[in-house]
Amino acid sequence: MSANSWIHFFLPKDRVFYQLFEQVSDNLQKMGETLKEAVITSSSERQRELVKMIEDQEHTNDDLTHRVFLELGQNFITPFDREDIHYLASALDDVADYIHGSAKRLIMYRIQPTDEYICKLADIIYKAILELKKAILELRNMKNLRNITNACVIINSLENHADDVYDTAVTNLFALEQDPIKIIKMREIYQTLETATDKCEDAANVIESIIVKYA
Amino acid sequence: MSANSWIHFFLPKDRVFYQLFEQVSDNLQKMGETLKEAVITSSSERQRELVKMIEDQEHTNDDLTHRVFLELGQNFITPFDREDIHYLASALDDVADYIHGSAKRLIMYRIQPTDEYICKLADIIYKAILELKKAILELRNMKNLRNITNACVIINSLENHADDVYDTAVTNLFALEQDPIKIIKMREIYQTLETATDKCEDAANVIESIIVKYA
Amino acid sequence: MSANSWIHFFLPKDRVFYQLFEQVSDNLQKMGETLKEAVITSSSERQRELVKMIEDQEHTNDDLTHRVFLELGQNFITPFDREDIHYLASALDDVADYIHGSAKRLIMYRIQPTDEYICKLADIIYKAILELKKAILELRNMKNLRNITNACVIINSLENHADDVYDTAVTNLFALEQDPIKIIKMREIYQTLETATDKCEDAANVIESIIVKYA
Repeated sequence: MSANSWIHFFLPKDRVFYQLFEQVSDNLQKMGETLKEAVITSSSERQRELVKMIEDQEHTNDDLTHRVFLELGQNFITPFDREDIHYLASALDDVADYIHGSAKRLIMYRIQPTDEYICKLADIIYKAILELKKAILELRNMKNLRNITNACVIINSLENHADDVYDTAVTNLFALEQDPIKIIKMREIYQTLETATDKCEDAANVIESIIVKYA
Repeated sequence: MSANSWIHFFLPKDRVFYQLFEQVSDNLQKMGETLKEAVITSSSERQRELVKMIEDQEHTNDDLTHRVFLELGQNFITPFDREDIHYLASALDDVADYIHGSAKRLIMYRIQPTDEYICKLADIIYKAILELKKAILELRNMKNLRNITNACVIINSLENHADDVYDTAVTNLFALEQDPIKIIKMREIYQTLETATDKCEDAANVIESIIVKYA
Repeated sequence: MSANSWIHFFLPKDRVFYQLFEQVSDNLQKMGETLKEAVITSSSERQRELVKMIEDQEHTNDDLTHRVFLELGQNFITPFDREDIHYLASALDDVADYIHGSAKRLIMYRIQPTDEYICKLADIIYKAILELKKAILELRNMKNLRNITNACVIINSLENHADDVYDTAVTNLFALEQDPIKIIKMREIYQTLETATDKCEDAANVIESIIVKYA
């Protein structure tokens, strides 16, 4: 039984971090679902509704992240290294920011839906979030480290896949699109979506560095 | 009286960090003032002068940031957590970099002055810097934590305001501007200015996490 | 003899970090060399080969970075502060990512070679990597701190030079190029190359903060 497990036993107080990270991952799952619908809906009214929902979900995420930092300041004992909690909360907050940024651009740039690459990237983001959620749930008991490692490995391969989708999307965009303004808009959306998957990978890397210390 | 206050009592040496951060915030205030003038002046000669001033101010900031890191290496005792000092210095350095980056682009892209949104963003940056300065001055005695929290809250709402200004600016830019090259230039300036406010918020978040540990 | 030197004496195990950082710097040197050839070759087949090589080298770098993080989790004793090892590995990984990103864009954007500014930036990146390698080799014995400081100073001035090259390149691009799509592509390549030098400077700053603690 590791020192940290003893800490859990004596100081349930620090469990607040698990609760907060679980709430963050639940909220991220909602954001991913909403984004997936926002990129395929053919109704611009519905798209506006969905982007508004994502905006509210992003504010929820800000509040949760803020609470993690406050708890970090108030708790002398933490379930794992302070800087890992800080890094993880920041990475998950970045995921929410880039999902929100992508969604906003759908409206700002009046992107017609069902662009093949936008849909693929939104789908990859959602899959990566589901794996993050699995890994975060396992952090609470640290019993199935294998499950956590698997989730992190899957997130890494999803991020590589997103890179390939992005490269193909941008290559085709420059090869086929004549309108430079359209190119500017689409490239920026592809980039924002792809960065969201980078941030999922950052979060996965923090989680991996956390569990390595328990091995 | 907290452990840290005792440290102050016995080791004035660590006060160097307060002095350095105060010098950084004074210098940032100058940069914010110079930027505000640079975005409204109708004389391109004057604009060049002002951008040159900002360049020099940015070098001053680099030197101060460098000194913070050197002191961090040499002082075993620090007034607050080493990583917080590191984060704060980096965030304030980023504010200076993005102000400098915005100013440079005014010249590089021959932006005619008095663009409504550029002026609004420069004004928000300046206001955020004034709040950062208030908060940093209070760090020295930690007597008025309320003032620090208030400053951080104001900086957060200024950053939200900057986001809205940016979104309106870019939406209008794409709706009204026909020239793609003009769009590329203006969007990049808006983005660089908006990022400067993000960095102010990062600095505010570090300050908040510092004072939480004193509460 | 510092506490750390004793640690080395008793725990050669921690030497793994020196080995890993030296392998990273060797791999970065290869990437820099390959990039330099990729930006001047007039054969598009050869360019594709070279970019493929950079892609493989980037994967090698990912594996080495990953190993650093794993060792960081498993070693209670480290040759220098854990967060410095984390920062240094991340900064060096970013250098590799931006070299790879620049190389990929040569293909994606069908950039004809021998653009004066691209070649200059690739050359600066290579020079900065050579200095990083010098500094990293010296970390092992910490005997010649002066050499490390000199390398870091040179890297800082190389980064300043890259900034100037970037500014000139972008100013000329907007002044001379009529095609907005060409502008988008070239500006992005310049930016990616310039960011690679920023990341070299980040790595140099971490190294400097490490040795300051030994002074």
